[in-house]
Amino acid sequence: MSTTKRQVALVIGAGAFGTAIAQVLAQNFEKVILKVRSKDIYDAIKAGENSIYLPGLKTASNIDAALSWDEVDAIGGKIELIVSALPSNGISEYFKENYDRFLGYFIKGIPLMSLSKGIDPDTLELSDDLFFDMYPHFKDQFCFLSGPSFAHEIMQDQITLVTLAGRSKQVLENVASMVNTSAFKVLASYDVKGVLLGGALKNILAIAGGVIEGLGYNHNTRAAMITRGIAEMLRFGAVYNARPETFYGLSGMGDLILTTTGDLSRNKTFGLELAKGRKAEEIIKSQRSVVEGYKTAKAAHFISERFDIRAQIFNGVYGVLYDGLEPREVITKLMRSPSKFES
Amino acid sequence: MSTTKRQVALVIGAGAFGTAIAQVLAQNFEKVILKVRSKDIYDAIKAGENSIYLPGLKTASNIDAALSWDEVDAIGGKIELIVSALPSNGISEYFKENYDRFLGYFIKGIPLMSLSKGIDPDTLELSDDLFFDMYPHFKDQFCFLSGPSFAHEIMQDQITLVTLAGRSKQVLENVASMVNTSAFKVLASYDVKGVLLGGALKNILAIAGGVIEGLGYNHNTRAAMITRGIAEMLRFGAVYNARPETFYGLSGMGDLILTTTGDLSRNKTFGLELAKGRKAEEIIKSQRSVVEGYKTAKAAHFISERFDIRAQIFNGVYGVLYDGLEPREVITKLMRSPSKFES
Repeated sequence: MSTTKRQVALVIGAGAFGTAIAQVLAQNFEKVILKVRSKDIYDAIKAGENSIYLPGLKTASNIDAALSWDEVDAIGGKIELIVSALPSNGISEYFKENYDRFLGYFIKGIPLMSLSKGIDPDTLELSDDLFFDMYPHFKDQFCFLSGPSFAHEIMQDQITLVTLAGRSKQVLENVASMVNTSAFKVLASYDVKGVLLGGALKNILAIAGGVIEGLGYNHNTRAAMITRGIAEMLRFGAVYNARPETFYGLSGMGDLILTTTGDLSRNKTFGLELAKGRKAEEIIKSQRSVVEGYKTAKAAHFISERFDIRAQIFNGVYGVLYDGLEPREVITKLMRSPSKFES
Repeated sequence: MSTTKRQVALVIGAGAFGTAIAQVLAQNFEKVILKVRSKDIYDAIKAGENSIYLPGLKTASNIDAALSWDEVDAIGGKIELIVSALPSNGISEYFKENYDRFLGYFIKGIPLMSLSKGIDPDTLELSDDLFFDMYPHFKDQFCFLSGPSFAHEIMQDQITLVTLAGRSKQVLENVASMVNTSAFKVLASYDVKGVLLGGALKNILAIAGGVIEGLGYNHNTRAAMITRGIAEMLRFGAVYNARPETFYGLSGMGDLILTTTGDLSRNKTFGLELAKGRKAEEIIKSQRSVVEGYKTAKAAHFISERFDIRAQIFNGVYGVLYDGLEPREVITKLMRSPSKFES
């Protein structure tokens, strides 16, 4: 909670999460500009409600929408924070297209907070490297927000704690002061890789959670899957030099609990549909929202092959999504695993 | 899954969990004897259903009940496993009363698997020390089962994974072979303290989970509490020389996820009642089942004071239970905590 209001926050992308973060920022900034691509979302935001992604929830009156940079400039005011709320597979393209614009912002010292989760299935890169490679002289200005936070609940001012990872204490503290409210709070971390990796991998386990629930398994089975799944996550972390503690933090375990046990998660819903016997590709094609876990499962599979990581649950999900395996057979096979010790 | 059946398993105590474990053992043993204290439960088991604690769920036909040792002896057969399914505050008294009987079993090399969770509020001891002090020459024969396992779901043959902690590889493997079925599986650990401590402390956080839900907070808030709560648990673990990994395993995080997100937990139900403004003592008095977290919260508070452990969530629960604090004020105060970094 800042005592004096900041001027302008610029949020790129108005999906559910981008809109919710804009709503939080609206408490601390004079003005929040949501820069959007689609005319329908633009109109919705202008009308005071993101009726596409967050129907029924009013956005704050100081949130404005812009379709173009001209419009952003016309709204004016001093931009003090940029938020990238793009899906992870859209980052490269967007920042390449608008390279100079953002370079100008970074030269002015404006920090960028990214909300993206996911691993690039082609390069196996996390979003920090996408940004760092494009703007190698401004690495310290980037920070990455991740944690248990349904957009819907943020809009309703539910108490929400998330991790903000970055390289610079000063930037982390500065951005934290712009984002924190009485209900929304960030805890800082220097483990950028761990935060991004946990945020990406947890989507795969959320799909598994949906499948398990869809097959009629209940709490015991789900809790076992989550716990053993996080143990597998740590093995991926070792490859990226991530800290184990991070996977047990808000961006890892916290977000996984949320995604797996909450009813609102897209990845879980995807798993529920899979359990009904629908094909992965068909489900993906039928919806507008991005199911991050679908592509991430492919990336995780490549990583586990390349670095020889033991990841039975992750590979089980991959098998269901890409090799047409029967979920129930995968689970039965997992139970026959000869592992005797917990760690 | 054993190929040849074992003879007799003796289960002391027929609460919900003791009964469910008897049901699992009934797949691997010729006979399971449930030794019970109350005539009503005795009659219920004899009639093929523990209608007091697990109504509507049939018990296996090879489960028998006994009120006395004479009756146990009359049933006969070679006892190969003893299960203690007593509440943690009943262990000392029961094993003192029946010291010689159990000594006889231990001399024969029969292992004992304990299901108790909780910390003794007077001595601050965990159940391993209660057993070890009484039978110091037979420590290796004890093992301790804990993990995400609603009794109800075990009875329904839901896939369930739990931790079995002990000191001897041979005993752990032997008991595992007696307990494992196609749906129920134990993973071994040598961290007895960590398993018992996590199993005890998680009940306190489950109460917190109930309170949070009862006050109308939703998934974001619950996931934050669980995650930050486990981070506090680790600080208790340091005092008992428990391994951090254990708290992130089935008996810690796994069980906490179950207890906090499942609808069936007594500790969570207790928290829901607290959120309605009912007094802790009054709720406790009105029910037959033991709410382990209630007493454990007191023990945890003593421990945190004695060893100067930072445990805001644990102490918040203590304040609500024993100092009459308002839950909502405790949560608001927690949110005002000045902590800036995640770890």
